[in-house]
Amino acid sequence: MMAAMPRILITSGPTREFLDPVRFLSNASSGRMGAALAREALRRGYEVVIVSGPVAVDYPPAARVISVVTTDEMLEGCLQVFSDCDGTIAAAAPCDFRPEAISERKIVRSDAGLTLKLRPTPDIIGTLGRLKQSQQWTVAFALETQAGLARAADKLRRKGCDLIVVNDPATLDSPDARVVLLDREGHTRSAEGSKDAVAAAILEEIERRVADWRIR
Amino acid sequence: MMAAMPRILITSGPTREFLDPVRFLSNASSGRMGAALAREALRRGYEVVIVSGPVAVDYPPAARVISVVTTDEMLEGCLQVFSDCDGTIAAAAPCDFRPEAISERKIVRSDAGLTLKLRPTPDIIGTLGRLKQSQQWTVAFALETQAGLARAADKLRRKGCDLIVVNDPATLDSPDARVVLLDREGHTRSAEGSKDAVAAAILEEIERRVADWRIR
Repeated sequence: MMAAMPRILITSGPTREFLDPVRFLSNASSGRMGAALAREALRRGYEVVIVSGPVAVDYPPAARVISVVTTDEMLEGCLQVFSDCDGTIAAAAPCDFRPEAISERKIVRSDAGLTLKLRPTPDIIGTLGRLKQSQQWTVAFALETQAGLARAADKLRRKGCDLIVVNDPATLDSPDARVVLLDREGHTRSAEGSKDAVAAAILEEIERRVADWRIR
Repeated sequence: MMAAMPRILITSGPTREFLDPVRFLSNASSGRMGAALAREALRRGYEVVIVSGPVAVDYPPAARVISVVTTDEMLEGCLQVFSDCDGTIAAAAPCDFRPEAISERKIVRSDAGLTLKLRPTPDIIGTLGRLKQSQQWTVAFALETQAGLARAADKLRRKGCDLIVVNDPATLDSPDARVVLLDREGHTRSAEGSKDAVAAAILEEIERRVADWRIR
């Protein structure tokens, strides 16, 4: 059932994948882009649901926030709400690897070191892309250190997204962002500045295209 | 050269050990215990130098803060200042493993997974324990999930510490703490409550014993 008021699901922040009760794999995602997207979407009259990993940022009180830790939990949170949303912007940086096993006890430091086997975690935006109904849209983020646009175009297709936001690792824990928006037809638009300004550009592109996406 | 005003080095927060430009190993240490110790030490008239990993907490403006990311950098920061300090409280939770190699490029997610070889990082409090002069003291933290006191007593001896603060992983990202202070003679004292209250108990124990430590 679609919401009467248009509703956007925003994923935000990092996830954590634990090796033992103390140590985890993660990344420096701050949740600031997710928070900026939430403020901008609310300003434009959307309802906003945020599924967020552990962050220190404050989300707008008008947004509903589902707090998660691991990538599995982030996917589960998204699946709870996605069918009631018009679309999703996947600004989170979920861990895409996790240890094969989690030690129940803190692993003891040893001079011999440690070999850690990692497995891929579930692909959140890819899963939502497969589940989406014809009236729904998905926007992915791609964090690329090289060959950014070619790799992002491939990701856009594989994951069934409508738009992909390509950014640089320097963006992760910064107040500013520099991104390229890439659509399925290969059109690009650059946006740069504060995360608020970049969030506004992303929402503007989504609103400009959403009528097309719905009749595709 | 000793400072005219007694000076304490406090390590605080987590460190990060990168796999590639985006992903790292870390833990949920918030820096709140380090900040509480810094406030309490300043209140008692000490000069405070904090060597801190990436945290969202605010340290008191009167403290000098050296910001670091990795365990190597935290050790280096400590070595820069330790000889000018009367003692150190190692409240940080540095990563004690790091990947053998750091990939220059973001590791591509693959269904095959990934095998990560980890090596031990330098032992910060153990290194300071070996370097300390007779008038200096070192206080370690031990985060133990089991057999806490026996393991902490062993750590206290091996690392040449004067006192060890044993706490539980639940303390890591919490406003409260429950700790046991253990000295070289096997005496224990429990402290529990806000991190400010526990920080006061730790500084009180240090001040009560420091005259003894100096004549040892």
